[in-house]
Amino acid sequence: MTRTTNTAQYDINSPENLARRKHGLSVLSQIDGHQGEAVIEALADINPAMGHHVAAFSFGDIYDRPGLDPRSRQLVTIGVLTALGGCEPQLKVHIGAALNVGLTREEITEAILHAAVYCGFPRALNATFTAREVFATRDDPA
Amino acid sequence: MTRTTNTAQYDINSPENLARRKHGLSVLSQIDGHQGEAVIEALADINPAMGHHVAAFSFGDIYDRPGLDPRSRQLVTIGVLTALGGCEPQLKVHIGAALNVGLTREEITEAILHAAVYCGFPRALNATFTAREVFATRDDPA
Amino acid sequence: MTRTTNTAQYDINSPENLARRKHGLSVLSQIDGHQGEAVIEALADINPAMGHHVAAFSFGDIYDRPGLDPRSRQLVTIGVLTALGGCEPQLKVHIGAALNVGLTREEITEAILHAAVYCGFPRALNATFTAREVFATRDDPA
Amino acid sequence: MTRTTNTAQYDINSPENLARRKHGLSVLSQIDGHQGEAVIEALADINPAMGHHVAAFSFGDIYDRPGLDPRSRQLVTIGVLTALGGCEPQLKVHIGAALNVGLTREEITEAILHAAVYCGFPRALNATFTAREVFATRDDPA
Amino acid sequence: MTRTTNTAQYDINSPENLARRKHGLSVLSQIDGHQGEAVIEALADINPAMGHHVAAFSFGDIYDRPGLDPRSRQLVTIGVLTALGGCEPQLKVHIGAALNVGLTREEITEAILHAAVYCGFPRALNATFTAREVFATRDDPA
Amino acid sequence: MTRTTNTAQYDINSPENLARRKHGLSVLSQIDGHQGEAVIEALADINPAMGHHVAAFSFGDIYDRPGLDPRSRQLVTIGVLTALGGCEPQLKVHIGAALNVGLTREEITEAILHAAVYCGFPRALNATFTAREVFATRDDPA
Repeated sequence: MTRTTNTAQYDINSPENLARRKHGLSVLSQIDGHQGEAVIEALADINPAMGHHVAAFSFGDIYDRPGLDPRSRQLVTIGVLTALGGCEPQLKVHIGAALNVGLTREEITEAILHAAVYCGFPRALNATFTAREVFATRDDPA
Repeated sequence: MTRTTNTAQYDINSPENLARRKHGLSVLSQIDGHQGEAVIEALADINPAMGHHVAAFSFGDIYDRPGLDPRSRQLVTIGVLTALGGCEPQLKVHIGAALNVGLTREEITEAILHAAVYCGFPRALNATFTAREVFATRDDPA
Repeated sequence: MTRTTNTAQYDINSPENLARRKHGLSVLSQIDGHQGEAVIEALADINPAMGHHVAAFSFGDIYDRPGLDPRSRQLVTIGVLTALGGCEPQLKVHIGAALNVGLTREEITEAILHAAVYCGFPRALNATFTAREVFATRDDPA
Repeated sequence: MTRTTNTAQYDINSPENLARRKHGLSVLSQIDGHQGEAVIEALADINPAMGHHVAAFSFGDIYDRPGLDPRSRQLVTIGVLTALGGCEPQLKVHIGAALNVGLTREEITEAILHAAVYCGFPRALNATFTAREVFATRDDPA
Repeated sequence: MTRTTNTAQYDINSPENLARRKHGLSVLSQIDGHQGEAVIEALADINPAMGHHVAAFSFGDIYDRPGLDPRSRQLVTIGVLTALGGCEPQLKVHIGAALNVGLTREEITEAILHAAVYCGFPRALNATFTAREVFATRDDPA
Repeated sequence: MTRTTNTAQYDINSPENLARRKHGLSVLSQIDGHQGEAVIEALADINPAMGHHVAAFSFGDIYDRPGLDPRSRQLVTIGVLTALGGCEPQLKVHIGAALNVGLTREEITEAILHAAVYCGFPRALNATFTAREVFATRDDPA
């Protein structure tokens, strides 16, 4: 399909990109819920393009792909974010997403203990305490 | 249960640790197959204690825990090793293990593409090419 | 603009994605030259979706954005890849790209020396020796 | 020695593991003091298995090994945690442990300055400010 | 020029090092302004040698080199610090420095979005929110 | 002491810097031996300033400082380089330096096993195999 308009591919507000973003946001909402939407909103003033690509690319193009189910995707993400360290804000969102897509609290804490073998106990401890925060918020959202 | 012998807990050749190691090696063999055993053997001369703990701790104590199944564990490991970078030798063994525990090649490459969102394309590219090596070896073990 | 076809956004061979990929590949060719194209080709059998997104997303959506010129982009990339470590294959491609977009050899080696302050000498040494390989290949492409 | 009970090796509350954990906790107390014990207690509700392995494996199996003295171990740990970054909570505990095992404040700050050469000034700065917090708490525990 | 005094090269208060430090501090002030000076002052009690080398080496020896201009240096630094993660305190100072040497806010946020391709969205998100803090402080220094 | 010449501080070939470099090289030779000198020589064509600063700053300014002995410094370095990963070339040089300054092979392998707790087994395995290479070369230098 050839372009009927003259907008550049990088223009995040082109009709094509608005459609990609809209779809991405719907995937994000199903997976991350309010927490994910909050990240996009927080980006609106500082870097709307980053928000666009988190939605359109990360969720619309990648997450939505059928070759790997959401539960499996969250296990990979928990591994990556635990290993990176310093990404506790994102780990919070993704542990929440993990619960949303059907991983249990036990599976999440086991995944982090498993990760300790491969990236060390310090990173795994920080991820564990992040999980505790998420679970506590779910128990008492006030 | 109190100790009937006087061996220190750190003594990797105490009767207790021989039992722990033996069990760990049997778990490792089921998961990693020959590749994992090769790592333990490679450690025999340089650091037998490290080989002991890879078997006894990583596999006997952690991997064997029932709270997370092997397929899920390998997804976490693929996430961690992709994110760390520079661990291609271990990623080779673990992609092999992933196939052994029932992940398909498509799921493995999807997991790495998924990881790209969280740790960037360079690390994901290196992990992808490692996967290609593993699959090629499986196709033609010569 | 609403979709006139029923292809999913994640389908890398939809008409829209073929167009995005085609544009991305043309940007990549201008910046990375043959080295970048070689990476996409190397992905064709193992993970064509990753190749699609390297082209369509990294180059078509991000690199092509007008807010930062290619010379500046390559300086950022050299910083990232030096700091990550273990990404020497990508650093090779990007040092080549840096030369293509007008950075001099002196500027590239200065950038790596500058990075040493922030990520340490070991990573900077490995990046420096990667630069030497790239320059040597340019001097003697045989 | 064969098992007289039928408990699995992964069962952290088996008689063998209770003994391993008890010994590990006694090593941890000598090295880390209250700070280390606090970490184990903080894990009790969220991931008791992780607390078990921090005690039984990290301290009982590894730290207690005679091939490297505690002062030397803390120097290695300071290097690792400074280089990892994002592990300031663990670095606090381990800088305290370093003082406990006989490293002086001067040696600790020199170790971090030395690390700056290898992992860059930003990580070393963050480690230095963590050391300052620890020393300040020792000077004024209120 | 041979040494006229007998002070060791490592002595940060030798006449030579006082001169190197003084020059480094003047470069640092031009680039980082008050934020950079604040880091040096914060080091005075805990690790004056580290403060000396940040000034004398990082700024006096490296930053001041003519082979790469300050604007280019800050692009490299933004890349390194975004990729490292966990260095938000330093990224704050360096985003400020980037504005001081003539990078625009748009160029800075584009640089971080560009980095996302190479080190992943989590690190880039954290860097973006750090940039937002810096810009907000500039808008309202109270 | 005021400058009697008009050379800039960044000029690595000023009389002052020649003296700093000369002293740094003598420290480096005592610690690293031929391996360290080889790194400096390898830098001569690609980035002589980096070679200058490895010698003058890393060794002349930092390593030579009296507050931490060489054996302790090498323990820190082994921790850093194991944790960073991807720095096997530098780890080779520094494991050699560790032997030169009096650490035994057992202490070195224990240090790496200790590091495994804090940065995971993959990084520690790669460091262990690097140590094996170094020891093998010492046993059979041919």
